[in-house]
Amino acid sequence: MESQSGADVFFVLMGAAMVLAMHSGFAFLEVGTVRKKNQVNALVKIITDFSVSTVAYFCIGYSVAYGVDFFVGSDQLMEKNGFALVKFFFLLTFAAAIPAIISGGIAERARFWPQVVASTLFVALVYPFFEGIVWAENYGIQEKIASMFGAKFHDFAGSIVVHAMGGWLGLTAVITLGARLGRYDKHGRVHAIPPSNIPFLALGSWILVVGWFGFNVMSAQSVQGISGIVAVNSLMAMVGGVLGALVAGKNDPGFVHNGALAGLVAVCAGSDVMHPVGSFGVGAAAGVLFVYAFTLCQNKWKIDDVLGVWPLHGLCGAWGGIACGIFGQKALGGIGGVSFMAQLVGTLGGIIIALIGGFLIYMILKSTVGIRLSHEEEYQGADLSIHKIGANPEEEAGRL
Amino acid sequence: MESQSGADVFFVLMGAAMVLAMHSGFAFLEVGTVRKKNQVNALVKIITDFSVSTVAYFCIGYSVAYGVDFFVGSDQLMEKNGFALVKFFFLLTFAAAIPAIISGGIAERARFWPQVVASTLFVALVYPFFEGIVWAENYGIQEKIASMFGAKFHDFAGSIVVHAMGGWLGLTAVITLGARLGRYDKHGRVHAIPPSNIPFLALGSWILVVGWFGFNVMSAQSVQGISGIVAVNSLMAMVGGVLGALVAGKNDPGFVHNGALAGLVAVCAGSDVMHPVGSFGVGAAAGVLFVYAFTLCQNKWKIDDVLGVWPLHGLCGAWGGIACGIFGQKALGGIGGVSFMAQLVGTLGGIIIALIGGFLIYMILKSTVGIRLSHEEEYQGADLSIHKIGANPEEEAGRL
Amino acid sequence: MESQSGADVFFVLMGAAMVLAMHSGFAFLEVGTVRKKNQVNALVKIITDFSVSTVAYFCIGYSVAYGVDFFVGSDQLMEKNGFALVKFFFLLTFAAAIPAIISGGIAERARFWPQVVASTLFVALVYPFFEGIVWAENYGIQEKIASMFGAKFHDFAGSIVVHAMGGWLGLTAVITLGARLGRYDKHGRVHAIPPSNIPFLALGSWILVVGWFGFNVMSAQSVQGISGIVAVNSLMAMVGGVLGALVAGKNDPGFVHNGALAGLVAVCAGSDVMHPVGSFGVGAAAGVLFVYAFTLCQNKWKIDDVLGVWPLHGLCGAWGGIACGIFGQKALGGIGGVSFMAQLVGTLGGIIIALIGGFLIYMILKSTVGIRLSHEEEYQGADLSIHKIGANPEEEAGRL
Repeated sequence: MESQSGADVFFVLMGAAMVLAMHSGFAFLEVGTVRKKNQVNALVKIITDFSVSTVAYFCIGYSVAYGVDFFVGSDQLMEKNGFALVKFFFLLTFAAAIPAIISGGIAERARFWPQVVASTLFVALVYPFFEGIVWAENYGIQEKIASMFGAKFHDFAGSIVVHAMGGWLGLTAVITLGARLGRYDKHGRVHAIPPSNIPFLALGSWILVVGWFGFNVMSAQSVQGISGIVAVNSLMAMVGGVLGALVAGKNDPGFVHNGALAGLVAVCAGSDVMHPVGSFGVGAAAGVLFVYAFTLCQNKWKIDDVLGVWPLHGLCGAWGGIACGIFGQKALGGIGGVSFMAQLVGTLGGIIIALIGGFLIYMILKSTVGIRLSHEEEYQGADLSIHKIGANPEEEAGRL
Repeated sequence: MESQSGADVFFVLMGAAMVLAMHSGFAFLEVGTVRKKNQVNALVKIITDFSVSTVAYFCIGYSVAYGVDFFVGSDQLMEKNGFALVKFFFLLTFAAAIPAIISGGIAERARFWPQVVASTLFVALVYPFFEGIVWAENYGIQEKIASMFGAKFHDFAGSIVVHAMGGWLGLTAVITLGARLGRYDKHGRVHAIPPSNIPFLALGSWILVVGWFGFNVMSAQSVQGISGIVAVNSLMAMVGGVLGALVAGKNDPGFVHNGALAGLVAVCAGSDVMHPVGSFGVGAAAGVLFVYAFTLCQNKWKIDDVLGVWPLHGLCGAWGGIACGIFGQKALGGIGGVSFMAQLVGTLGGIIIALIGGFLIYMILKSTVGIRLSHEEEYQGADLSIHKIGANPEEEAGRL
Repeated sequence: MESQSGADVFFVLMGAAMVLAMHSGFAFLEVGTVRKKNQVNALVKIITDFSVSTVAYFCIGYSVAYGVDFFVGSDQLMEKNGFALVKFFFLLTFAAAIPAIISGGIAERARFWPQVVASTLFVALVYPFFEGIVWAENYGIQEKIASMFGAKFHDFAGSIVVHAMGGWLGLTAVITLGARLGRYDKHGRVHAIPPSNIPFLALGSWILVVGWFGFNVMSAQSVQGISGIVAVNSLMAMVGGVLGALVAGKNDPGFVHNGALAGLVAVCAGSDVMHPVGSFGVGAAAGVLFVYAFTLCQNKWKIDDVLGVWPLHGLCGAWGGIACGIFGQKALGGIGGVSFMAQLVGTLGGIIIALIGGFLIYMILKSTVGIRLSHEEEYQGADLSIHKIGANPEEEAGRL
């Protein structure tokens, strides 16, 4: 028994380390996609958001979700092997993904400290409120869903709890902020803003892909509960996403590397109940969905979501929540025990909470401290205006 | 027992994740070595090849090697803990290394889709045919070798099965394609084409080095079977390769970082039976071999193998297969149970299958759809001609 | 029992792989911080130092520290599961951190081979001498400390044994070498030398951060001994370091990303005995300490420690050794069993050994073979003068 416990701590710790690494993936995905004058800002935002998220989740959020107060029940901190602590670490790396997702949407024009405040509030309150409903079954809502639809809302690794939540919060941020200067002109014309660095974008994507196997597989939270099917479903959805985006996106490197992520976002919810072939289909659909939704966002709807975090995490996450209710059915090769209606309700519930929480917080911040850089600062770039240094200081100093 | 099973799934999963990460290493090794106008192509090739390999190995290749058909025996998919599935995942990451290896040889001039077809055929048929002979002992060939030479052909982690196979397939691809434009002129002069980015090359090498410990150690496929000696032999061969290439390559960063890989390629086969000092020697010899063979290839034999995948994986892999039969002997500090002749025969067998399979497939593709970019496309670079975007689009758009 | 043993090998192996990865983190931290003309040198130094460290520690150092001679007791190499070997691998990755730390201080002006000799001597003799006193309790010194102060000197994961040792050795190197050309002029003016590449600096920092969880947690060296508190204390110190450096360093990306490392350096010693809130405080103080000490070093004291390895590893390591004696006390929420005086004595002991060993070796090298590049070589850059190639050869060749 003691041995099992040590193995579980090791297992969850490896998951936590892998998802921690994903945060550098978020950073490089953003570094590669934004213009060079905003690369430093991307890097500092991600590591700062991760840090304030840790404090917010440790002090407040984890207690909101799971009722564990580290300041009162302090003895359990020192308990044999400290499983309670690595579980906190693992779940924190999920919570901190919320500001990391939003960061990519609001890039190149958001003020630094107001966004730190928003991150803190999301991780302390909004995210754990919904997380607690789904994963800790707070307020008896899961039981009510089960009694109405025959099954609880199933979100194994967070298509809705993490990704849709982050993506729809990101949408509220992007809308509240408005588009970058020069992105759309008054005649309704769209001006493309090309990414700075495809290799960094791809590096970010690869780091996220590899870490995702910790995100999904270690969601079992015990070595006994590990499931090879979660791993292979994640794999199949990822390659489905790549191939879907490759074809729909006509070989574009940004689409291909985000396609892998789209598939992985979509597979989280049902990765433990779908068949690998079903997972491939779910991922491929997500890859295609990302390409079209991203293009519509940017060019038709004029939503200046820089990295496409709403299409990627918001829409593909919602698709994943619903797809779990379809491809998780035994009739489609799944393991069963899921309900389409429960998935729909849970997915919509997550979206609604994100929209309410996001607009509320961003509207308050906008009307009080302000959330957007001045035109001059934005034109100069977030790097120089916020951090007083660019991404390649030697080059800029002409000291080559 | 149940505990063991969960631990084994965890163990093999970590191996799979580490070898999955190696694919990003292949990508960055190529990004750093090719010219800037072909960096995007390198990235898209690797992730696409990985994706089509997954589909090909899932649907066909795995069945060719191990007789496991995921579409018939579908129940085992859902089996307790899904060990069968993570084992597939782990072995897939090996199979997908075949096109990743070839990719580096044919860089900067190959057409995209024909190579995707070649990758599919290699991973579905050629690779698993030989893999099955060696690791699943198909067709009774291992027994025949054992009865002739006193021991089976031993290739613990794939010096031959993976690396020599990939390297010699790469050679057929490079020869069928021909050299890059301007590489050798009609007067027999050699024109150097310098790499674009040493830090990316080194990043790729480091990612490969770290992932390799999953490649080699998790080849045990169970926690019980884990062997510290495999880890330390890999370490010793890697540092031997670095130091061999450092001296032979006169401090050149490309040689040093590829030297680590040369040592690791060579140690795979015998990493479980050699002594650490023997492994150091095998790695050092591989590092030196790589430097000289690469130089001869490029400058004397005029084989335009861009990353040197034939010297690295083909020759050092073959050396590793044979070295296992030498340094695995008890007289040289090894654990024994290996036969020099069996190693020689197995190594040659792998090479012959690669040469036949490779030339056959590339010749057919060349004479039907064509495998090479037009001169104009090659001159423009694979990035713009295939992917319609370069590695640094912002810079290229003059929007700095 | 056998199962436990296999699990332990797996556990320590993952630690070794994670700390191996940290060496690429050291490399990229240096690549990003130095000028472009010295990037290749940074990369080659790190992988070469790692390689010679492996040989030196295998042949001599490990025996100095733990009395294990791989050449005599060779049978244990082949022992069931090879736990002795992975333990060597894990501890080697710590030993090899010594030259990796020093490398960042002496960047841009040190000769290559003399530094390889220094690295060899440190890893073969100086480091394992102190390591053996603390961790193998050689010479009865720990017992003497315990009898005097009521507790042994406690350094769970190496704030002193690894980081202070490396940082103070680095200081001797930096002082013996002198400042880079043009760094300080004869009128006492300071000339800033801006870093080349913030994204590479941040990449290096992230790789180090993630690997650090292997460095600290796997220091338990058995799955049974794993402790979730070590993981969460590391996390809290890291985010404390980020936030401390963010505020003290006014949002500078270099300070923020090094702040994470400062917190992690400081938490190593007491990560198994402090409270998470204490660890946060220790990390935050380290982040602030790094910012002020780095600035004083560079601008007041004119110590041209390029990456700030003395402030980072030397001072924050010493702070960590002492802080363990404060925040490890039960009165401050810790687990207890540590003594402030023992920590002070152990910390000073480590510093003194580093200063003596470092000055001795560097003075001898300086007065015999010389340790510094010629003015011309330094001006040209270490890349071209030592490695005959720059970081972006294609660009330099004007072949864009």
